[in-house]
Amino acid sequence: MAGYVQDDITPEELERQKAVYVPLTQAVRELVDATIRTEVDDDEIRAVQAEVEALTARLRTHQLEGPYGVRFGVTGRGRPWGNSVVGLRNAIAPPLAIEHDDSGRAWADFHLGAAYEGPPNLVHGGVSALILDQMLGEAAGAGGKPGMTGTLTLRYRRGTRLGDLRAESWIDRSEGIKTWAKGHILDDEGVTVEAEGVFILPKWAREAPATKPAPSYFE
Amino acid sequence: MAGYVQDDITPEELERQKAVYVPLTQAVRELVDATIRTEVDDDEIRAVQAEVEALTARLRTHQLEGPYGVRFGVTGRGRPWGNSVVGLRNAIAPPLAIEHDDSGRAWADFHLGAAYEGPPNLVHGGVSALILDQMLGEAAGAGGKPGMTGTLTLRYRRGTRLGDLRAESWIDRSEGIKTWAKGHILDDEGVTVEAEGVFILPKWAREAPATKPAPSYFE
Repeated sequence: MAGYVQDDITPEELERQKAVYVPLTQAVRELVDATIRTEVDDDEIRAVQAEVEALTARLRTHQLEGPYGVRFGVTGRGRPWGNSVVGLRNAIAPPLAIEHDDSGRAWADFHLGAAYEGPPNLVHGGVSALILDQMLGEAAGAGGKPGMTGTLTLRYRRGTRLGDLRAESWIDRSEGIKTWAKGHILDDEGVTVEAEGVFILPKWAREAPATKPAPSYFE
Repeated sequence: MAGYVQDDITPEELERQKAVYVPLTQAVRELVDATIRTEVDDDEIRAVQAEVEALTARLRTHQLEGPYGVRFGVTGRGRPWGNSVVGLRNAIAPPLAIEHDDSGRAWADFHLGAAYEGPPNLVHGGVSALILDQMLGEAAGAGGKPGMTGTLTLRYRRGTRLGDLRAESWIDRSEGIKTWAKGHILDDEGVTVEAEGVFILPKWAREAPATKPAPSYFE
């Protein structure tokens, strides 16, 4: 089973992996979008399906037994590449490239297309929740107060249209093992969804602070 | 732009579409999983990537201009096939096959694999939020009180392991245009995440009740 795996890859190996996995995953994201939107005829759909199955079989000839987990190279930076929001190898992830500063602020610009739809033309409310859970956790981690999500509250001010969007998050306050973080999603007319969450430092991280992964590896 | 589209397809055409789109989308879900987990060599990854791009181009020769929206056939039942949680044509959706009763209860059994990971081996907290947003909205709709999500609060009791899971939701109470719904996700040892939300009947549905889509078409 995958977990927090120390695979000690070098920075050069890291770049090599990114160079092959990022374009493959982006190609699969485009296929996900085309699968929703295609109107080609049935025979062509069946033919494409058979070829997709053959490609999957080729990729599966040598594969991890389970999920990707979080892997660490020699630099000590983790690779959460299977993560549903930021995973470079996960075609479900937009993916968000989240930037941080030491004060506990995080932000990301991203695009959501047809695969993230709830009501017609609008971002699924749960997708906004998915993104904000990650954003608030990253803010807590960026400020040195990483944690697992304890509670998360979303307030939907209006529909969020599909397209180019921005998310921002920050630490509101901390007490002991708990950190309160806030954040929101914005379109070009302002805030559409607000979030507040409590992030709790895991017990194993409290007991073994020297060996805990860096903050950003927490969800 | 897609929206609530009345395309008046017959029940026979509906079955024909399901028969081609469901297997294609399932094949793409498997490809998403294999893309995360593959360990084949770089040349093979590049070769697969090129073929994925070619398949996408074939599907895109004739496609919808934008997202799928929600489409209605002659039966009056909507097809939210691009929806991120229940969409039959969306490889991001597990998808959930949600069952309902008239009292405002909804439930679904589903499987989450590597693509839904947050912390190693665990469901991403935001994925639980995504699923519960849909579940609570469906409960409100099933009870005749459809609505857009107003607020949503999640309480994470413990980590949810990847694998076979169940979600349940129900109406807690209603007042005028607001409905409070609750729900949770369970693994084989019990509840892992609890949710509560307020769903608000959209203005257009209040003003034109006779033409509103059936409850389940709301997110």
